[in-house]
Amino acid sequence: MVQLTDQEIASKADIQPIENIAVKAGIPKEALELYGKYKAKIDINQISGNEKDAKVVLVSAMNPTPAGEGKSTCTVGLSDAFNQLGKNVMVALREPSLGPVMGIKGGATGGGLAQVLPMEEINLHFNGDLHAITTANNALSAFIDNHIHQGNELNIDPRRVTWKRVLDMNDRALRQIVVGLGGPARGVPREDGFDITVASEIMAVLCLADDIIDLKNKIGEIVFGYTYDKTPVTVKELKVEGAVALLLKEAVKPNLVQTMEGTPALIHGGPFANIAHGCNSLIATNTARKLADIVVTECGFGSDLGGEKFMNIKARKGGFQPDAIVLVATVRALKMNGGVKKENLSEENTEAVISGIVNLEKHIENARKFGVEPVVALNDFVTDSDNEREAVLSWCREKGVRAALTKVWADGGRGGIDLAEAVLEVLESEQNFKHLYEDTLPVKEKIERIVTEVYGGEGVNFSDQAKRQIKEIEKNGWGDYPVCMAKSQYSLSDNPSKLGRPEGFTVTVREVIPKTGAGFVVALTGDIMTMPGLPKVPSAVHMDIDADGNSKGLF
Amino acid sequence: MVQLTDQEIASKADIQPIENIAVKAGIPKEALELYGKYKAKIDINQISGNEKDAKVVLVSAMNPTPAGEGKSTCTVGLSDAFNQLGKNVMVALREPSLGPVMGIKGGATGGGLAQVLPMEEINLHFNGDLHAITTANNALSAFIDNHIHQGNELNIDPRRVTWKRVLDMNDRALRQIVVGLGGPARGVPREDGFDITVASEIMAVLCLADDIIDLKNKIGEIVFGYTYDKTPVTVKELKVEGAVALLLKEAVKPNLVQTMEGTPALIHGGPFANIAHGCNSLIATNTARKLADIVVTECGFGSDLGGEKFMNIKARKGGFQPDAIVLVATVRALKMNGGVKKENLSEENTEAVISGIVNLEKHIENARKFGVEPVVALNDFVTDSDNEREAVLSWCREKGVRAALTKVWADGGRGGIDLAEAVLEVLESEQNFKHLYEDTLPVKEKIERIVTEVYGGEGVNFSDQAKRQIKEIEKNGWGDYPVCMAKSQYSLSDNPSKLGRPEGFTVTVREVIPKTGAGFVVALTGDIMTMPGLPKVPSAVHMDIDADGNSKGLF
Repeated sequence: MVQLTDQEIASKADIQPIENIAVKAGIPKEALELYGKYKAKIDINQISGNEKDAKVVLVSAMNPTPAGEGKSTCTVGLSDAFNQLGKNVMVALREPSLGPVMGIKGGATGGGLAQVLPMEEINLHFNGDLHAITTANNALSAFIDNHIHQGNELNIDPRRVTWKRVLDMNDRALRQIVVGLGGPARGVPREDGFDITVASEIMAVLCLADDIIDLKNKIGEIVFGYTYDKTPVTVKELKVEGAVALLLKEAVKPNLVQTMEGTPALIHGGPFANIAHGCNSLIATNTARKLADIVVTECGFGSDLGGEKFMNIKARKGGFQPDAIVLVATVRALKMNGGVKKENLSEENTEAVISGIVNLEKHIENARKFGVEPVVALNDFVTDSDNEREAVLSWCREKGVRAALTKVWADGGRGGIDLAEAVLEVLESEQNFKHLYEDTLPVKEKIERIVTEVYGGEGVNFSDQAKRQIKEIEKNGWGDYPVCMAKSQYSLSDNPSKLGRPEGFTVTVREVIPKTGAGFVVALTGDIMTMPGLPKVPSAVHMDIDADGNSKGLF
Repeated sequence: MVQLTDQEIASKADIQPIENIAVKAGIPKEALELYGKYKAKIDINQISGNEKDAKVVLVSAMNPTPAGEGKSTCTVGLSDAFNQLGKNVMVALREPSLGPVMGIKGGATGGGLAQVLPMEEINLHFNGDLHAITTANNALSAFIDNHIHQGNELNIDPRRVTWKRVLDMNDRALRQIVVGLGGPARGVPREDGFDITVASEIMAVLCLADDIIDLKNKIGEIVFGYTYDKTPVTVKELKVEGAVALLLKEAVKPNLVQTMEGTPALIHGGPFANIAHGCNSLIATNTARKLADIVVTECGFGSDLGGEKFMNIKARKGGFQPDAIVLVATVRALKMNGGVKKENLSEENTEAVISGIVNLEKHIENARKFGVEPVVALNDFVTDSDNEREAVLSWCREKGVRAALTKVWADGGRGGIDLAEAVLEVLESEQNFKHLYEDTLPVKEKIERIVTEVYGGEGVNFSDQAKRQIKEIEKNGWGDYPVCMAKSQYSLSDNPSKLGRPEGFTVTVREVIPKTGAGFVVALTGDIMTMPGLPKVPSAVHMDIDADGNSKGLF
């Protein structure tokens, strides 16, 4: 049997006109702005009132391995399962970044029979949202450098411009650059760098804003640097918050697409969870909450990253809560956490599964720390053995944790019915959601609480720079912001090689950066970088297009 | 009377659903990909055969003044006039760049009652084409730097990478930069710079390709740098021409919109004419030639820039010819060319008009050098006096040049009827189109011929660098490419302060750069820069957006 790629499966799927999906979702025709036949933007001003008591199901995961654990696949499959059970369900996902698409990961639209469509368009440019964010971010950079060049009335210290440029690209050569070289016609020289677009504060702001006016106001609050006497300078002082928001006029509207089984899907906003807050937009989640009874949404990487930030940042700012948490686990990831090398993952090794399960255990504990009951989704892979599967499921039974084997990759929604039923049990019971910390806790203690409670570490080493930055942050009145941790996704610690459930470790915070538009402070740990690099052979070399415009190599 | 801005006029216009425009243009439903209610991309594979003998009307101009002379306005108004005369007409325009929109020029969608709609969306992001080009260009940059970083099998000399990054932005601080700083994790340090996207060779290639496969092949031919032993290295050798073309999957499709009077308009591709070849895409022009009897298209700036390049590059590569040339002139521009300062333009000064008319005269001669009869469109401004207008029109009568006063800004198509009728006279007579030079003429002589014949100069000074580069170009077998001149738009010479009809000047060519994908060589003259800067107070500070998503300040 020839194994089809996800892209080949997607191209054979029976895709419906997006107008039909809108009808199903209860979106009125006047709210719909078509982008081709299968995508639309939603004018949220046309989605009338009556916010329903939708239940929010958050899909998180154990720590991933380099290959990815199929969290998007499970999120899509779970929503299709609810759809099959006759529920009024919507799924809310993040938009893919071109960096990983061209680099190593490929597309980010799920897999097998649990995908969102149209796969190619979502993976490439997708209605232009990320490009609009890139443009808005870099327009601000141009305005800043132009202001300095044209007399610098605001007295901006070129050495203290914290705003970086961005591209939706994996491009390590842009991590650290010098701009403004070549004499007076070419601006004022200063050190700069590019982040990947998903790490831009504009992305965070777009994902945390209520609407376009809130977005504009938040952009106005962004501190992009400091004067020579160290006073923060905001976008409002440059008078360009209107122009920057205008560039996001269309990007602020959530995008409607569909799963392969015709479940309505909103895909909007896409900050990475290792270097940003890792959740789709509040606007999309709230739109889905108005339209559906059950909203299935994901957050990036494990519960230590996207999960923690969903609770402490997105849910806090949005004033809502998750009603159930799904934790995606795979036999392969458990084995890797149990010490098996990548090349040996296809061999049965039940012992390694059991010894790696401590990683999953910590993520289960984390969900409960937030007062929400988890359900383990054991995402089936063809190489898994019955013994291995049973080892996981029986461990869950012993620990009193709901768990279900999900076969959504192979079977679509039908393969997620058991999972959906387990989630429904949780949704029917009362949860006691709580944030991990109050806003007013000092910044250092917030970070320490996340490290000790969520990561299971002993404590935090703050670099001298981080200490100085925290002092400045609190002096400037930003101490009440929640913290957005930037950390490796592969380990509960800040060291990607420490798999399983590391203990006795400390986390090093090397920088703490205020994001006054988004309203959080970013703590950079370990050697996490906000601009990824490409591998020796990028996915791009396998990509192609034919005369009919069909693509190849997007996985 | 309150004067409305172009944006206010546009927002009050009676815009039709784009499906109606498609019906009018004869575009079948299956070729239409809607982008919202008023824009669509065209799948050219669905536009069936029978290429008609459409007449092509090229709108060019005298040398512009800093305020712009309304060439887009005249192009739109002329097509509306043909429409009013019952002709089957389409207009083919270039896409605006965000650089000028945010910088000094504002939008580029015509003005008054001669605009294309929807004005906001065309000026902002417009179906993502420029962003896709930016991304394709910068993906190639990332692949190049990654290749060097990952062992450099192709032996690329980092000092000889000629491929620059781009942004659709006016950002002088990026003109000259150093990338790859910060140690081994951050790539290999080298000098680099950003051009504005419209100057990217990807833009040129997109505008000169016949279809997606031709586009991919041309991208494969791009030389992005040289090895340590000075051998050219192509994109094909990096094996990423498929991925780069894939990123242009949608951008390669022309965009259908409408004029305020419902004339079908294709807007596609947007290279600047001072630093690139300055014409909309061949794909759009050819699509319009299949659908309409008359195609009105523009080229950037004066006949010395976009005009010359339309003839010698676009028409040559496309194998077609213009059947009439419209030269847009204004009393204001003539006065400036006659020595009047910008602040005094509103005062009547017929003498200055007459003394500036030598500039227009040269552009008339230029059109005739290409064997095509020109028609002067005197684009009316409210501050023009009857004496001034009559001075221009009677001069034209004396010289035996067709001319018409056009009032398309105030009156739409109705204000362009006289112009349309004069153009129809030309279309009914035989033209003897010829290129200015044969492919096989040596590069130096091509440049000299353009300078002496089109600019009216005495000759060319080639810098030592340019001489070396021309030698390399001819050694590498690229000597038969046409030349793409990069020159100031304000003067027939390479010195923007020399207005009127300068004589006895020489043009300095400082660099000659092969563009082996586009198939031309760029000659950089004077101090022309391929990345513009922002003015002290950019247009952006006047822009805003309201809660309903309406924009302000796009002019």
